[in-house]
Amino acid sequence: MPLLKSWVASANDATHPFPLNNLPYGVFAHGDEEPRCGVAIGDMILDVTAAEAEGLITLIEEPLFDLPFWNPLMEQGPAVWAALRARLTALLSEGAMEQEVVEPLLVPQSAVVMHMPFAVSEYTDFYAGRHHAFNVGSMFRDPENALPPNWLHIPIGYNGRASSVVVSGTDIRRPWGQLKSPDHDLPTFLPSRRFDIELEMGAIVGTPSNGPLSVQEADDHIFGYVLLNDWSARDIQAWEYQPLGPFQAKATATSISPWIVTKPALEPFRCDTPEREFELLDHLKDCGPMLYDIDLAITMAPAGQKATTVARTNYKEMYYSAAQQLAHHSTSGCPMNTGDLLGSGTISGPTKPERGSLLELSWGGKEPLTLDTGETRSFIEDGDTLTLTGAARGNGYTIGFGDCTGTVLPALKDPYKR
Amino acid sequence: MPLLKSWVASANDATHPFPLNNLPYGVFAHGDEEPRCGVAIGDMILDVTAAEAEGLITLIEEPLFDLPFWNPLMEQGPAVWAALRARLTALLSEGAMEQEVVEPLLVPQSAVVMHMPFAVSEYTDFYAGRHHAFNVGSMFRDPENALPPNWLHIPIGYNGRASSVVVSGTDIRRPWGQLKSPDHDLPTFLPSRRFDIELEMGAIVGTPSNGPLSVQEADDHIFGYVLLNDWSARDIQAWEYQPLGPFQAKATATSISPWIVTKPALEPFRCDTPEREFELLDHLKDCGPMLYDIDLAITMAPAGQKATTVARTNYKEMYYSAAQQLAHHSTSGCPMNTGDLLGSGTISGPTKPERGSLLELSWGGKEPLTLDTGETRSFIEDGDTLTLTGAARGNGYTIGFGDCTGTVLPALKDPYKR
Repeated sequence: MPLLKSWVASANDATHPFPLNNLPYGVFAHGDEEPRCGVAIGDMILDVTAAEAEGLITLIEEPLFDLPFWNPLMEQGPAVWAALRARLTALLSEGAMEQEVVEPLLVPQSAVVMHMPFAVSEYTDFYAGRHHAFNVGSMFRDPENALPPNWLHIPIGYNGRASSVVVSGTDIRRPWGQLKSPDHDLPTFLPSRRFDIELEMGAIVGTPSNGPLSVQEADDHIFGYVLLNDWSARDIQAWEYQPLGPFQAKATATSISPWIVTKPALEPFRCDTPEREFELLDHLKDCGPMLYDIDLAITMAPAGQKATTVARTNYKEMYYSAAQQLAHHSTSGCPMNTGDLLGSGTISGPTKPERGSLLELSWGGKEPLTLDTGETRSFIEDGDTLTLTGAARGNGYTIGFGDCTGTVLPALKDPYKR
Repeated sequence: MPLLKSWVASANDATHPFPLNNLPYGVFAHGDEEPRCGVAIGDMILDVTAAEAEGLITLIEEPLFDLPFWNPLMEQGPAVWAALRARLTALLSEGAMEQEVVEPLLVPQSAVVMHMPFAVSEYTDFYAGRHHAFNVGSMFRDPENALPPNWLHIPIGYNGRASSVVVSGTDIRRPWGQLKSPDHDLPTFLPSRRFDIELEMGAIVGTPSNGPLSVQEADDHIFGYVLLNDWSARDIQAWEYQPLGPFQAKATATSISPWIVTKPALEPFRCDTPEREFELLDHLKDCGPMLYDIDLAITMAPAGQKATTVARTNYKEMYYSAAQQLAHHSTSGCPMNTGDLLGSGTISGPTKPERGSLLELSWGGKEPLTLDTGETRSFIEDGDTLTLTGAARGNGYTIGFGDCTGTVLPALKDPYKR
C-alpha cells in the first residue's frame, strides 16, 4: 500500500507518524475546553466529537463521541470500526468534497494536552518475549534453565492494576516499598532504588466476550495497539513476588502512548511469530500472521539534558501475539470487557542493544550504561525522562504511535505525612 | 450492645441474620422490575431507591440510589455513611413515627432476586491466613519451611479479575484449562479435575485514595464486608502459577454474598490480630483491633441431596486485617478506587475441620472427605452446591451476611464450538 494523500499537507510526508494511512484515535483538550475525541492527521487533530455533533459522522443512532474516551466506539465491533475509518478517510483524502466544512474542525497538535484515550477496564501484563524471559531467567535462575517449564506452552501473564495506567507525559513518582537486601535478615521500608522501565506494546480489547475465544476470534476482538511502559520497582519485586507474582512493584504507574493505532493501519505490517520449539496446543496455535513489524526504541534523558537512545528492538521479537494472549486469557471462561488492556511483556531482541529494560541493559546493575552525556545509569535516577517510540515503516509512509514518555520525580519524603 | 427492636417483627429474633443492628445493603429485583437498592430488615427489604424518591431519605443534593449499585453512596465517605445508617435506624425502629409511610416500601426477601450489590472496580486476593499458608506450604514445599520468607512481613496478594466476580446464586461453569500431569512430559487442554473453593471475607473500598495509606486511614476507607468464595482450579494453578502467580486458575468466577455488612454493624465484634512472630514495620503495625469475630462455615451438597457442613472457622484466624492489606496495597502509590474488592485469603483455623478449602480438607486429594450422604469428595463434582455462611453472634442478636452459594455445572463439551 502506498502513502494515501490528504489535503492536510503535513500528513503527506513519508516520515510523518500520522499520515492518512494511520488515523489513530486519541482524547485531547484544547485550552480550557473539556477533553474530546480526536483523530491525528499530520500535525493536526480532527475534532471527532465536533464532527459527529455537526452531522459529518453518523455511525449509529446514538452519539458515540460525546464522552472523553473511545470505549463507546470500541464496544461496537468491527463493522462500525470499519465504517468510521472509511468515513474519516473520505473526509480527509486529497480532493474531499467536505474539506471546507472539515477544515474548521482541525486543531494543531501543538496546542493541545492529550488525555487517556480510553477508560481501562482491567489491565493484564504478560511475560511473552522470549529474549526478555531468557535474560531474566539467566540472571535470577540459571542460563541452562532460564525459561520456566510452562513458558513455551502458554503466554504467562498476571493481572495488573488498571487504576495505575496513565497517559504519556504524566510524571511518575518514585515509589516507597518494602525491600530486603541480601545482606540483611529483615526488610525495611524505603524508596525504591532499582526503579526501571519495561518496553511493551499494549493491545486494547474492543468487543467484550464471555467464554473461551479462539486465536482468530481473539484477534477480531482487538481494537488497536499503544506503546506501553510498565514502570517496575525491581527491589520491591524481588522481595514480594514469591509465591503469587508481582504486586506493588508494578502498581505505581503504567504509561501508554496517547494514540490508539488501529488494526487496519497496522495490517500491512503483519508478520509471523517465531518458530516454535514445542508445538502449541490447538487452542493457542497461530492461524495467520498476528505479530507486527514495528520498530521500537527507548531513550533516556537526565534532567535538563539531551536524550540517549539506550535500546532499539522490534515488536516481531515477541514469542506470543496479543491474539494468543487474549485467547489464553479467556480459556477459563474469564469475561473480557471493552477497554481491557493487555501488555505484551517486555520486548527484547537477541543482542545487548536490543534489550527492553534497564534490568537487562545493565545486567542487574553489574554493567552500567554510559549515556551520551557521559553519565552512567544502572536504574532510573530522579529527574530522568524515559521515552518509548514506535514506528512501522511502509513503502513511502510511516505509522507512528506518538511518544510514550514520563519523568521520574523524587520519592515523597515522608509518605504518611498529611 | 443489645438487640435493637424494630417494628418489623421478624427482625427481633435473636438468631435472625438481619436485625436492626445489622442493616446490610443489597440490590434486589422484584418480579419484572428493574434492580434497585435495598436494606435487609428481618425477612423484608426496605426499598431504599423508593424511599429516596419519596423524600424519606435525603443525604446530599443529588440522588444516591437511582442506580442499581451502592457505589454512589460508597464514594461519599464516613459522614454520609453514618447519616444514612442513622436515618434507616430511625425509620425502622420500634415506635418510629414513619412506620405508616415506610411499611408500603417493604418487599419480602422471598419474592426477590438479588443482584451484585456494587460495581467491582478491581479485585485483589490476598494470602493472609497463616494456617492456610502453612497447610499449602506444607503440602507443596516442606512443613519446615512452609511460609515464604516474606510472609510474616507483608500481606502477600495478587490482582484478580473484577470481571469474574458474581453474586451468590450464580451457577459456576467448570473451566477448561491447560494442565500438565506429573506423569506426562507435555501439557494438555482439558476441563479442570481439581476444582475447589476458598472460604474468604471480602472487604470493599469505599472512598478512593491516591497514595500510601496508614493502617488507620485504610480502615477508615473500608465501607463493609461480604463473604467471598474464590473458586480455584488447582490443576490449572499448579501448571501456570510459576513465576508470576495464579491467573486463569482464579479467573472463572469469584462469588460474593449479596449483602454488604457495614463496619458499624460489625463494630462490637472487633478483635485483635494474632501475636506477631516478627514485629511488623511501622507502616503495617496494628493500631487497634481490626479483625472481627465472625463464625464462618462451608457446606457441600451433591445435586438434589442434603448439605453437609465440611468446615467451620472464624475470620479472627487471619494474620493480617483488611486494613493492613489495604495499607500495603497503597504503599507504592497504587490508586485505590470506590468498589475495589479485597479478598482476605483463605481462612483456615488450626485444626483439620477448620480448613477453608477442599485442597486442605482432603490434603491434596489424599484424604477424601465423607459427606453425610455417604459420598466422598476430594474436589468438587458436577452438580455440587457449595455454600459459605457467616455470622457474628452478639448479646441477644446475630449479624448475618446471607449465604454465598454456587452450583458447579459440567464443563462445556467443546469450548470452541459456536
